[in-house]
Amino acid sequence: MTTPDFAATARRVEASFARQTIMETLGARLVRVAPGEVEIALAVAPHVAQQHGFVHAGAVATIADSAAGYAALTTMPEGRGVLTAEFKINLLSPAAGERLVAVGRVVKAGRTLTVAQAEVFAERIGGDETTRKPCALLTATLVAVENRQGVVD
Amino acid sequence: MTTPDFAATARRVEASFARQTIMETLGARLVRVAPGEVEIALAVAPHVAQQHGFVHAGAVATIADSAAGYAALTTMPEGRGVLTAEFKINLLSPAAGERLVAVGRVVKAGRTLTVAQAEVFAERIGGDETTRKPCALLTATLVAVENRQGVVD
Amino acid sequence: MTTPDFAATARRVEASFARQTIMETLGARLVRVAPGEVEIALAVAPHVAQQHGFVHAGAVATIADSAAGYAALTTMPEGRGVLTAEFKINLLSPAAGERLVAVGRVVKAGRTLTVAQAEVFAERIGGDETTRKPCALLTATLVAVENRQGVVD
Amino acid sequence: MTTPDFAATARRVEASFARQTIMETLGARLVRVAPGEVEIALAVAPHVAQQHGFVHAGAVATIADSAAGYAALTTMPEGRGVLTAEFKINLLSPAAGERLVAVGRVVKAGRTLTVAQAEVFAERIGGDETTRKPCALLTATLVAVENRQGVVD
Repeated sequence: MTTPDFAATARRVEASFARQTIMETLGARLVRVAPGEVEIALAVAPHVAQQHGFVHAGAVATIADSAAGYAALTTMPEGRGVLTAEFKINLLSPAAGERLVAVGRVVKAGRTLTVAQAEVFAERIGGDETTRKPCALLTATLVAVENRQGVVD
Repeated sequence: MTTPDFAATARRVEASFARQTIMETLGARLVRVAPGEVEIALAVAPHVAQQHGFVHAGAVATIADSAAGYAALTTMPEGRGVLTAEFKINLLSPAAGERLVAVGRVVKAGRTLTVAQAEVFAERIGGDETTRKPCALLTATLVAVENRQGVVD
Repeated sequence: MTTPDFAATARRVEASFARQTIMETLGARLVRVAPGEVEIALAVAPHVAQQHGFVHAGAVATIADSAAGYAALTTMPEGRGVLTAEFKINLLSPAAGERLVAVGRVVKAGRTLTVAQAEVFAERIGGDETTRKPCALLTATLVAVENRQGVVD
Repeated sequence: MTTPDFAATARRVEASFARQTIMETLGARLVRVAPGEVEIALAVAPHVAQQHGFVHAGAVATIADSAAGYAALTTMPEGRGVLTAEFKINLLSPAAGERLVAVGRVVKAGRTLTVAQAEVFAERIGGDETTRKPCALLTATLVAVENRQGVVD
């Protein structure tokens, strides 16, 4: 469903993501924007590691939070943005492999509050196939903001 | 209380923190290690921002998670490390100012599971004084790991 | 999949549920036990209400926590039980209607920790059809316990 | 600080608590209302137990959620109520003894969202003294509601 209207929404998400400078710092990319669903990928690399060489839970949370938040943003009319009020993340397995992919989805869209989840998968690229293992699960509560200078989208 | 024994514990925390390469990537520093209490500071800078110029919730979570986790580690005997099983963070106010300081404290130390919290403050340095405003509150569940190659401390 | 083995597991869940006296106090019933999946239903009634007449979030959490916990228990061998270490619940819409149904599912089964979710639906029974509206989403971390007197199953 | 104004606020909390019929069902009582702080006590009794005879996590969550929510309500002007958007609870030790006491406190009061915590203590009454052991820690996000029929206070 990439209607003309949704193309404009996708552009809002892309423009907002481009302003999240932490994404370039970590090496994360926006890979998919669909109505109520957004994917962000992070290459597993030495500069985002914790003490055992896995990706730090905070980096996992960064892409998961943004994937959930942007999934929520796709449900908002122009001029209304979202801020994360809180999130909870379970780390299910070590964040290792070649790439992490966070898939954010809206659970419940509301006027004031929106609940979204993000599943993070650790991808391991073999010779012929790529395997995906669940590595984290995040649930976020987003609050809609409107007409506040500088905080839209 | 920096007994000889705790000095060894503090060195374990410092050595582990030094291996968390994401900290250098973000610009975070370990500023205090005490029994059951650890502080990590992050300079507010353009490369860790979200779309409105505030520090991204994921970067806030990164220092808060490590502050809580290392607070837990100070309660563990040598050879036993901790991994974050899950955490929840509430974002209380925009992560702005000059510096964020995450103060991690153990809530309940256990053999298998330890619960720790971290408060994150946003510091604004004025002419004569530094003001601290609460900007996030994290609660984490840490699981003790022992005798697993590569995951200790 | 109700193999002979699983029939024994289902009986363990039923026997444990029967000992949860709060369930009778609230009016909750165990309605389905399957491998990795358990459902508990609660009739909407005046004695479980909060101040506006909806079912209290704590009662919603009670059936959701048990549905998640028993889903986890179905994955445990005999003699190993589970305890809830923590849970997080989002209340998505008022807990109203005729009946709440909590559907618990295992997200990740582990030796020490198991993560499970429960979705709670509010059922409204119309003339010809029953509608189900999502009313809460819980994520729980369960810790396996073994050989501790009185805490198995 | 029981100014005349706060006396009116305390009465709003008491009146709202009296309408939470689940409290009578569980055996919980409102024991203290102060600005930004509310205490609810629950007698440990057979009808609120889980399978091992401890108080069910859901009953613990019920009093903790209400203690946090009413702490938030004390900061609201008349005509504005609060609803729990979400909460997270860590169970720190078995909910046993004679009485559980949930102490709710406001962490951050806001126009739209308020964050509150509740600590739950398990009290054991000895011959000469009562000991209090931390048994749970809850963090809740409350959303302010205004001018919605039936959901105020």
